[in-house]
Amino acid sequence: MEFFKVVSPEEAREAARGFLPLPAEEVSSFDAVGRVLAEDVLSPESLPEFARSIMDGYAVRAPDTFGASDSIPAYLELVGHVPMGSAPAFEVGRGQAARINTGGMMPAGADAVVMEEYTTAPDEGTVEIRRPGAVGENVLGVGDDLKAGERILPAGSRLRSQDIGAFSAVGITALKVHRRPRVAILPTGDELVDPSQKPGPGQIRDINRFSLAAAVIESGGIPETEEILPDDLATIKSRLAEAVERVDVALISGGSSIGMRDFAVEAIDSLGEPGVLVHGISIKPGKPTIIGRVRRGGADKAVVGIPGHPVSALMIFHAFVRPILRQLSGEAASELDREKGVLARLSRNLPSAPGREDLVRVKLEREGEGFAAHPLMGNSAMISTMTGADGFITVPLENEGIRAGAEVRVTLY
Amino acid sequence: MEFFKVVSPEEAREAARGFLPLPAEEVSSFDAVGRVLAEDVLSPESLPEFARSIMDGYAVRAPDTFGASDSIPAYLELVGHVPMGSAPAFEVGRGQAARINTGGMMPAGADAVVMEEYTTAPDEGTVEIRRPGAVGENVLGVGDDLKAGERILPAGSRLRSQDIGAFSAVGITALKVHRRPRVAILPTGDELVDPSQKPGPGQIRDINRFSLAAAVIESGGIPETEEILPDDLATIKSRLAEAVERVDVALISGGSSIGMRDFAVEAIDSLGEPGVLVHGISIKPGKPTIIGRVRRGGADKAVVGIPGHPVSALMIFHAFVRPILRQLSGEAASELDREKGVLARLSRNLPSAPGREDLVRVKLEREGEGFAAHPLMGNSAMISTMTGADGFITVPLENEGIRAGAEVRVTLY
Repeated sequence: MEFFKVVSPEEAREAARGFLPLPAEEVSSFDAVGRVLAEDVLSPESLPEFARSIMDGYAVRAPDTFGASDSIPAYLELVGHVPMGSAPAFEVGRGQAARINTGGMMPAGADAVVMEEYTTAPDEGTVEIRRPGAVGENVLGVGDDLKAGERILPAGSRLRSQDIGAFSAVGITALKVHRRPRVAILPTGDELVDPSQKPGPGQIRDINRFSLAAAVIESGGIPETEEILPDDLATIKSRLAEAVERVDVALISGGSSIGMRDFAVEAIDSLGEPGVLVHGISIKPGKPTIIGRVRRGGADKAVVGIPGHPVSALMIFHAFVRPILRQLSGEAASELDREKGVLARLSRNLPSAPGREDLVRVKLEREGEGFAAHPLMGNSAMISTMTGADGFITVPLENEGIRAGAEVRVTLY
Repeated sequence: MEFFKVVSPEEAREAARGFLPLPAEEVSSFDAVGRVLAEDVLSPESLPEFARSIMDGYAVRAPDTFGASDSIPAYLELVGHVPMGSAPAFEVGRGQAARINTGGMMPAGADAVVMEEYTTAPDEGTVEIRRPGAVGENVLGVGDDLKAGERILPAGSRLRSQDIGAFSAVGITALKVHRRPRVAILPTGDELVDPSQKPGPGQIRDINRFSLAAAVIESGGIPETEEILPDDLATIKSRLAEAVERVDVALISGGSSIGMRDFAVEAIDSLGEPGVLVHGISIKPGKPTIIGRVRRGGADKAVVGIPGHPVSALMIFHAFVRPILRQLSGEAASELDREKGVLARLSRNLPSAPGREDLVRVKLEREGEGFAAHPLMGNSAMISTMTGADGFITVPLENEGIRAGAEVRVTLY
């Protein structure tokens, strides 16, 4: 006897696809680190806008130094010292050189910089050059770094420190980034009490409100947590209806009892079309997951019924909610993502029922040059199996298990 | 001619070791995600505090179901339905069973739960059981998840969503975590202008203040940026002296010209003992790096002279400043850290001067099952070589280069 029709993880992933990136907002470059670009950013100008030295040394005309060596140095007339922060007032003519520091503007006439360590200035008016300079050597030419109109980064890039630096370099101090997803978390269950309270007999403290809020933060979203809701359909319906007006994603946690599962399904379906898309997934832990979708204000809102067991709740977050948040964030898919795990050797046989995808929590331990992955047993009601885990491995649907010694990829928490 | 005595990267790393974790502060569990525990956290109580069902089904005495099967079911007397959130008012005696939902408190007498799908309730007073239940099956016993006094997590753990969940489960709503490192960023250079300004001839926009601030944020620290300082020793000395009173780490960026390098060294040495420990590192990019240390308020403050070139600045941040921030954050070393990179095949020969450690920026591209790492050329004055990079590889000091086709580990940005 099944209480709902389970679908494959792939079907569930399909139901969690197709969310559009959230609208853009403008933020200062200072606040943009970790945010996702909503548009291509083009360089408004060339970088640098003047030829600069990238070394301390002497700006020269390259041909004047050809053949210079320790035994036969070239002697050039010293015509000045390039000031930092302004244009040199002199030119470098044939047989002449000018002292220049890193970042200094190349004087007219000069086309190379010979590094200080290959020079000696025997007096105020002369410099001895002991290495030849090639044309353009130690010089950053106009537009060598970025050309005017060149794309610095495409839309969908998650901004890193170097990106912020590049924007500063060309005078971009504000950026259009996608709004961060807002996620409502509605804990439900007559048995739940706030963690600050001492539970009575038959009661337990609410875990998922806190762990899911933390997971939302880890994923770059903004959590909005609600107080614990009773197992009451009217209350759940009305709070959920309010939440989907306000947020981009609503997570109803709990409803692990049969009646409650019906409440969550009924509450989601009461919001309008298309409503519940998935009710039950052939995945462990997390089978009684609900994935729904409703339209509000011209946008699709995701509504996910998260299992009450704390381990299931977080694993379902990783497997289905995080990808939704990523779509909403506008971040472009990267070939790197699925590689960010760690390869490890499975330390013991891991049986798995075929027809079910298993997400198995593992602890990693160094073993020679690599790692051993130790599966952590214990059921999905035990939060301690998560605090001890470094990550998880995925045993695919069609697989009857993985043998000890096999190489597995561990997705790190 | 050398302007400073370069040390090996290992000597420089040694100079950047030994910083003690910052003092603890108490934060709510809501604010603790990503923070580092300042003390071991023990469970104040057992979890669960009463035996609970982890499935929907029927609470039974296991011996009453021995041998039950589809062909020979056991019929038990139904004595009630365990309420959610309170203790059942009845016991389960021999030949009896009680309806129970996930999370429900086991009634006295019952020692196993048979899952609903293996049962039928033909009438209000009877349940048919078609599978035997083993003692303890589908039951979470007292303390099975956490025992009173058991360590949930050790000091030095960086808190993840599941950890926040575990604390909630046992009523821990506030945590002692290490204070986040405060990092002053002092940009220097007569040639620098604010990114909002149009640079005149010979001037460039300040990059490092912004990229370093972003890197501090990425590392979990709090940046405090200063306005651009002129190349003036007295000003630099006084601003640096103020900064080290206030922050945990001060970064002086710039000083790429000879005179300015002396200013940074002199300013750091003017703060007191031990002052400058390293001035010049055999690393590329980033040779003209300064690492200093001074004591203020009973704590060691790090003062790092960061090269002015934007690429050098960020690479030196990754190589030397981030490890200091990590020590200050109190995060325990993990075997996993250096594995978080990605293995890739080097796409072309990479020569390197022996006696110098090279940090080479690479772009990753999928190649069969793995990745190809393409070194990005261009000098350390070109910020565009960072925006295009996925990470970097380290060519060790003693190495004369790496051949095309060799497997390299890429540290991801």
